[in-house]
Amino acid sequence: MFIERIKSPGIAHISYLVGDGTRAAVIDPRRDCGIYAELARRQGARITHIFETHRNEDYVIGSVELAAMTGAEILHGKQLDFAYGTPVGTGDAFDLGSARLSVLHTPGHTFESISIALADRSFSPEPVAVFTGDALFIGDVGRTDFFPGREDEVAGLLHQSIFETLLPLGDHVLLYPAHGAGSVCGAHLASREFSTLGYERLHNVVLKHTEQEDFVAFKRAEHHYKPPYFTRMEQYNLSGPPPLSGIAIPGPMSADEFASRMAAGMVVLDVRGPEAFGGAHIPGSVSMPLDHVPVYAGWLVPYDVPIGLVIDSLDQVTTAREHLLRIGYDTVSAYLHRGMTQWEVGGREFEGLPQVYIGEVKRRLDAGEEFLVLDVRSAGEFAAGHLRGALNIYLGDLPQRLGDLPRDMTITTFCGSGARASIAASILKQNGFGRVENCLGSMAACRSTECPLELD
Amino acid sequence: MFIERIKSPGIAHISYLVGDGTRAAVIDPRRDCGIYAELARRQGARITHIFETHRNEDYVIGSVELAAMTGAEILHGKQLDFAYGTPVGTGDAFDLGSARLSVLHTPGHTFESISIALADRSFSPEPVAVFTGDALFIGDVGRTDFFPGREDEVAGLLHQSIFETLLPLGDHVLLYPAHGAGSVCGAHLASREFSTLGYERLHNVVLKHTEQEDFVAFKRAEHHYKPPYFTRMEQYNLSGPPPLSGIAIPGPMSADEFASRMAAGMVVLDVRGPEAFGGAHIPGSVSMPLDHVPVYAGWLVPYDVPIGLVIDSLDQVTTAREHLLRIGYDTVSAYLHRGMTQWEVGGREFEGLPQVYIGEVKRRLDAGEEFLVLDVRSAGEFAAGHLRGALNIYLGDLPQRLGDLPRDMTITTFCGSGARASIAASILKQNGFGRVENCLGSMAACRSTECPLELD
Amino acid sequence: MFIERIKSPGIAHISYLVGDGTRAAVIDPRRDCGIYAELARRQGARITHIFETHRNEDYVIGSVELAAMTGAEILHGKQLDFAYGTPVGTGDAFDLGSARLSVLHTPGHTFESISIALADRSFSPEPVAVFTGDALFIGDVGRTDFFPGREDEVAGLLHQSIFETLLPLGDHVLLYPAHGAGSVCGAHLASREFSTLGYERLHNVVLKHTEQEDFVAFKRAEHHYKPPYFTRMEQYNLSGPPPLSGIAIPGPMSADEFASRMAAGMVVLDVRGPEAFGGAHIPGSVSMPLDHVPVYAGWLVPYDVPIGLVIDSLDQVTTAREHLLRIGYDTVSAYLHRGMTQWEVGGREFEGLPQVYIGEVKRRLDAGEEFLVLDVRSAGEFAAGHLRGALNIYLGDLPQRLGDLPRDMTITTFCGSGARASIAASILKQNGFGRVENCLGSMAACRSTECPLELD
Amino acid sequence: MFIERIKSPGIAHISYLVGDGTRAAVIDPRRDCGIYAELARRQGARITHIFETHRNEDYVIGSVELAAMTGAEILHGKQLDFAYGTPVGTGDAFDLGSARLSVLHTPGHTFESISIALADRSFSPEPVAVFTGDALFIGDVGRTDFFPGREDEVAGLLHQSIFETLLPLGDHVLLYPAHGAGSVCGAHLASREFSTLGYERLHNVVLKHTEQEDFVAFKRAEHHYKPPYFTRMEQYNLSGPPPLSGIAIPGPMSADEFASRMAAGMVVLDVRGPEAFGGAHIPGSVSMPLDHVPVYAGWLVPYDVPIGLVIDSLDQVTTAREHLLRIGYDTVSAYLHRGMTQWEVGGREFEGLPQVYIGEVKRRLDAGEEFLVLDVRSAGEFAAGHLRGALNIYLGDLPQRLGDLPRDMTITTFCGSGARASIAASILKQNGFGRVENCLGSMAACRSTECPLELD
Repeated sequence: MFIERIKSPGIAHISYLVGDGTRAAVIDPRRDCGIYAELARRQGARITHIFETHRNEDYVIGSVELAAMTGAEILHGKQLDFAYGTPVGTGDAFDLGSARLSVLHTPGHTFESISIALADRSFSPEPVAVFTGDALFIGDVGRTDFFPGREDEVAGLLHQSIFETLLPLGDHVLLYPAHGAGSVCGAHLASREFSTLGYERLHNVVLKHTEQEDFVAFKRAEHHYKPPYFTRMEQYNLSGPPPLSGIAIPGPMSADEFASRMAAGMVVLDVRGPEAFGGAHIPGSVSMPLDHVPVYAGWLVPYDVPIGLVIDSLDQVTTAREHLLRIGYDTVSAYLHRGMTQWEVGGREFEGLPQVYIGEVKRRLDAGEEFLVLDVRSAGEFAAGHLRGALNIYLGDLPQRLGDLPRDMTITTFCGSGARASIAASILKQNGFGRVENCLGSMAACRSTECPLELD
Repeated sequence: MFIERIKSPGIAHISYLVGDGTRAAVIDPRRDCGIYAELARRQGARITHIFETHRNEDYVIGSVELAAMTGAEILHGKQLDFAYGTPVGTGDAFDLGSARLSVLHTPGHTFESISIALADRSFSPEPVAVFTGDALFIGDVGRTDFFPGREDEVAGLLHQSIFETLLPLGDHVLLYPAHGAGSVCGAHLASREFSTLGYERLHNVVLKHTEQEDFVAFKRAEHHYKPPYFTRMEQYNLSGPPPLSGIAIPGPMSADEFASRMAAGMVVLDVRGPEAFGGAHIPGSVSMPLDHVPVYAGWLVPYDVPIGLVIDSLDQVTTAREHLLRIGYDTVSAYLHRGMTQWEVGGREFEGLPQVYIGEVKRRLDAGEEFLVLDVRSAGEFAAGHLRGALNIYLGDLPQRLGDLPRDMTITTFCGSGARASIAASILKQNGFGRVENCLGSMAACRSTECPLELD
Repeated sequence: MFIERIKSPGIAHISYLVGDGTRAAVIDPRRDCGIYAELARRQGARITHIFETHRNEDYVIGSVELAAMTGAEILHGKQLDFAYGTPVGTGDAFDLGSARLSVLHTPGHTFESISIALADRSFSPEPVAVFTGDALFIGDVGRTDFFPGREDEVAGLLHQSIFETLLPLGDHVLLYPAHGAGSVCGAHLASREFSTLGYERLHNVVLKHTEQEDFVAFKRAEHHYKPPYFTRMEQYNLSGPPPLSGIAIPGPMSADEFASRMAAGMVVLDVRGPEAFGGAHIPGSVSMPLDHVPVYAGWLVPYDVPIGLVIDSLDQVTTAREHLLRIGYDTVSAYLHRGMTQWEVGGREFEGLPQVYIGEVKRRLDAGEEFLVLDVRSAGEFAAGHLRGALNIYLGDLPQRLGDLPRDMTITTFCGSGARASIAASILKQNGFGRVENCLGSMAACRSTECPLELD
Repeated sequence: MFIERIKSPGIAHISYLVGDGTRAAVIDPRRDCGIYAELARRQGARITHIFETHRNEDYVIGSVELAAMTGAEILHGKQLDFAYGTPVGTGDAFDLGSARLSVLHTPGHTFESISIALADRSFSPEPVAVFTGDALFIGDVGRTDFFPGREDEVAGLLHQSIFETLLPLGDHVLLYPAHGAGSVCGAHLASREFSTLGYERLHNVVLKHTEQEDFVAFKRAEHHYKPPYFTRMEQYNLSGPPPLSGIAIPGPMSADEFASRMAAGMVVLDVRGPEAFGGAHIPGSVSMPLDHVPVYAGWLVPYDVPIGLVIDSLDQVTTAREHLLRIGYDTVSAYLHRGMTQWEVGGREFEGLPQVYIGEVKRRLDAGEEFLVLDVRSAGEFAAGHLRGALNIYLGDLPQRLGDLPRDMTITTFCGSGARASIAASILKQNGFGRVENCLGSMAACRSTECPLELD
């Protein structure tokens, strides 16, 4: 019997290949699904079942693509009208060799959410592990803010799913959730990627709220952001996304071609780090450090326009494209050959973005100099500690809030460590703000150096 | 926080890299230890600690080699006088970022055995997982037959370690043992490689014996074999084995060279499958299907003589050499270039070994024909079901028991599926038995076809 | 400027990625063409052109598949009416950075054959290398037997192409042909895969025939076999083969399923070595050692029936499938899980095939024992030396010649080293010949041991 | 017969594995020589001979290391008193299967330089290829400036070696030199890595000087730099370098540790690109873009002091260490964990380096603004075109020439494309120059935008 974890970085999505002998199932496959076929091949197994724990909203599900490749059957919850697959619910079970996969309806994150309990029938019909989708994470639970006006209802359902369906499986049951460290799907997610129902019962801070009322109140008080790209993901995942096979591979482009495409509307994502963007970048490009593509592209990049990449190394083309395909951006058409060097040796104008260190920011604050700290972290992060006088606009909301910013003052962008702030600074520059700089280190540097902070 | 499992096939030994942030520890490293340095490198961590759960007897421990490579400190139990490393015991703890590794003295398998509990201090000082070495496995417990005359004492200690030290850590604690599916260190090991203390408490058949007396009796009734190579492993692991760097890489050899080395005493291991050995093999070679090298070479191959390999593919040279180095055979000096083809096109004499299927064996038994079924499985396997009239000599004991076998009768070697039987048949042939054949399928084929079996 | 060789083993087909800067061309892509996209990606280049040196007859060309993936233009000779691509001829040239690829019409192997000369324009407009397709090889030249009744005409054209078009490019020009060591497309191919026009002019035995008449006579005297699968390849390569994306991945199958599919018409290819086939094989299966799949499947396996594989290791599934897809077999549907072991432990009947060594064959010949040596090598190999009394039937012709063989006599199959003979023996067994054995070592063993041979 | 090229980037050193059947030789192995053993393993061959074409001065030769691993014999020229190996000269020949390697004494680059001609004895005793070491390259010839006062003598020898020993082997002979595209060992090296003696005879600009006098004059007029590290390489390669096995693997370090080691003398190499260095870097660190490590570390980094790395990705640690080990820097002890981010979030001060584009430089020149363009290219590059008023100090000489620079003026560093200029700027900053900036794009940008240039 085998379980293999396949983690997609950035969105920190975790899918699983689980099976025994010659048969295997995949739980929540991502769109670039060749990896499951390859892992199954190495196990000497055939993929016969694909489970979707829910209609995902944060990435394109690969079920239809994988089913076409393997002939496997797609299974998902009953409470949503999917255009493909077979509805299943509590009581349905599927055997793969000694492994039995039993469906449990665990609504809350969404109405049709299911969990899948795994038993090793050669030992016991009782479960040894459970795949919980977005119901229960390691250190947190799923979001319950996707049904406006029904937040309390779904939070109540989630409480019931966790306390009445999942935890009763037993403290000793291993926990395999659909998101892990680094996900924006939970605020308290552990960096550790192994746990059990019992460990969560004891140490998951959200599960301290054992009473339903208390739990619902806790969830009601949470604040989450919903990126605009979720809408497209929901459509795709209800009806089945377009196949990958027709999507072209991005090729290298000269500086001249790149510039003329950009003039014609190509969006340029600069996936290098903030320091490199700070040293030299193409005017009008968006800073989008590679790790942040999966989370912030969906806020800031329109669909259906050509995307060009500025990269440091060829591998970044592949990674950036993977990140973007996983959230439905199928239009990555080119990258700047040899990266910025090509632009520079072409004699084309580039710009820098000044980077300041926290000591300088503190000095200015202490000296009462006039400048604006624009803190683009979430409201929750901001409330937990921020610089005096800082203005909080969440990065995802920035394009809509530009009118709230002064154009005659130095704006110092600020976030957790400087990466999101770099994205923000690039957007300000793109929109004609002339005096922009980025605070590398940002809040983390504040905490390291014990700056005085304000709380909300 | 990360845990990576590194499994060495054949002996089914499992070692772990565990750490957080920039620091990592290795638990029970194998001898070819570059893999730990590489995995740590990818994590961006430095290996600072090496734990030995006990003085291993079934493989060469890589601690000294790995310490030389990384500068890490070696830690092991106090009850044995190791020539290297630092003794630790219950109460000692080591922090690697948020991870705390706490030593628990868990004697039983050996007197100095330790387990290591892992806590995620960012959640709780209480353990989330435990590395149990050879104390507690998934589906079984460690052997307690290594101290002749003191079997009951050590079985009692093991009971205490499991029931008073390990299980009380909590049902929810994840279990990471030193052996997994395929190991000869336990008879009931699961094929599944994930479990918790709670799941074992409920479903591990050995742990049904909750009373110490009952447990000791159960352990006393077990029968294990102790291969002669264990003695060398124990010496090596007490004093530190020779470094790998001086050991030559085996090169290709012509059929003529191979034959003349063989004449001069080179032991030839034919690591191809039983079917290929059956079709054609070098007279005098030992059948040793690749997967069986880790377990049976130590019974049948003398130390300190040159070893030559007959292989199907070049990768088998690497794998066979790894297997052999892990159990202290440092004299693999050559392989037959292009395998048997080279021998064959050289016009050299080869031999076949007849392979019979179970239907033919049954037909002969039913017809009362005279032949001997030599069943080389363990006494326990034999007792649980065997063919009528079969003689049981454990494969490891065969070289010492040749005098018990008739030379004037067809001998049909027999085991679980035909692989060990192929080894046995090759030993018989090597020792001049003229009418030998192998039953491919063996007991598994019996069970598939519902042969009548006898029990002991 | 870069050239990368991509060799497909078995058919020993060589394709090339050639380019400079951001642009690259592929010459004669194989069907599984992801490798070219990946190599181009690593070079930071985009594939813009695909050249077909001729309508290949021995493998499925990947041009259409690769063009769909990259948007590249397909270019081929003018003398054949392809259903896709653009016709080109002498005088057409294409620039990729400093590289200039110039087309040369070099008919002979086929009428529309082209070569492509490569110049490094940063040094000289004169060529530094030439891609010769099937016109000129290292050690040999292309076949001229594909146009029945016009053999002399095409041989004359080939002479002209080599002596008037290619060799005049200069002794110093590097030679990159479409087939290499191991190909059946030439009898004298070097094992070495680097040469120049000058080295060939001096040392290629076929080019000793500098006079056209002499050259044509030499070519006329050659004897080649044309496997039946060439017909399908020619159709595919004229009209474009089916895409790979819809072809299912073969999965593991139990012994029972395998047996029942076989009963329903599935062809079983046993891709293990002859020794393993000799030890135990499924009755009715065809011995087809993995390396021989590309060359002999096309003679012996019908199209459009399901194919099942018997393998030694999972990698053989992938390799066998690749080999088969490259020659248009798209129906590999399953493999026997765990190979023969699965069959054996299922208690199913298997058979052996006796393997004899050359010493025994000689002994019998000397003793005048009655048996038939069936030599399945080509007529040319046979003529150059064979055993006394041997009957020569080329392996590819065997299914049509079974009526010529005695059913009441031991037949010893024989070839170059024993692999083709194993295939032949399996076909005899499949057709009810009861006394069949294979001579491992075969002619090579004869030569090693200085058997007396007869010439034709 | 096989030849495999192993190229070490940066120094563009090319070594070769050449062999046939079960035997192989390595020509000019690099220090990290496991790759040869692995390539030989895949060929099924044993490395029996190691050739050194000359006592290399630009990298550590791996012969002694590789001989220890394989038992191969080391062979080199007779005219130098090596502490290891066997002297060989013209007339000595070594057979590996069908391959014959014949030594040719080809002095000039050094006195003991040898070339190795390769014949395929199955075709002809005449050579098909020649390994020329540093005698003859593709597009250039070896340096002849290593013996002060004897330059003309050695240039004469080189002329003789090329025109009387190498070219007479025949136009059709393939050329395999010891350096390729990107090497500083020749000014005219092709980007193309395949050629023949004939192509060089026709198109190598240096070989236009067929008359010895003319050739010597041409070589006399060349200007080369000799980095100080060559001295250590020469010592190492005469006596044998220290083994790699004792050299520690660099581990991750916190910002605090890194800072305190730096204070204690650790040299910090920032191997990120110039843009990232421009955005933010550690005060006092040396900009050394990864690709430039092999060539410029040897000029600017002292031996025997600890080296710390600032990196963008973990792979850069491995690559930078390889580069440094190959030129004898064995003291890479640490890297900054997570790169600059770690420094920034630690709240530590960082600095930027302004990057200017060519348009701004031209504007200032046109406006007559006061600033100094410091052009750090070689004298030859400078002579071929430079900006008006630029000062030329070769990068390697910069530390010795700091006194020639004004401290009260903006200095704009300048080179071919901006990378060497970044190194130069970091050295100026390290030495207290306060107004330094780097011109990204540099001369290449000038040429793209058609700046007016001056010639010397």
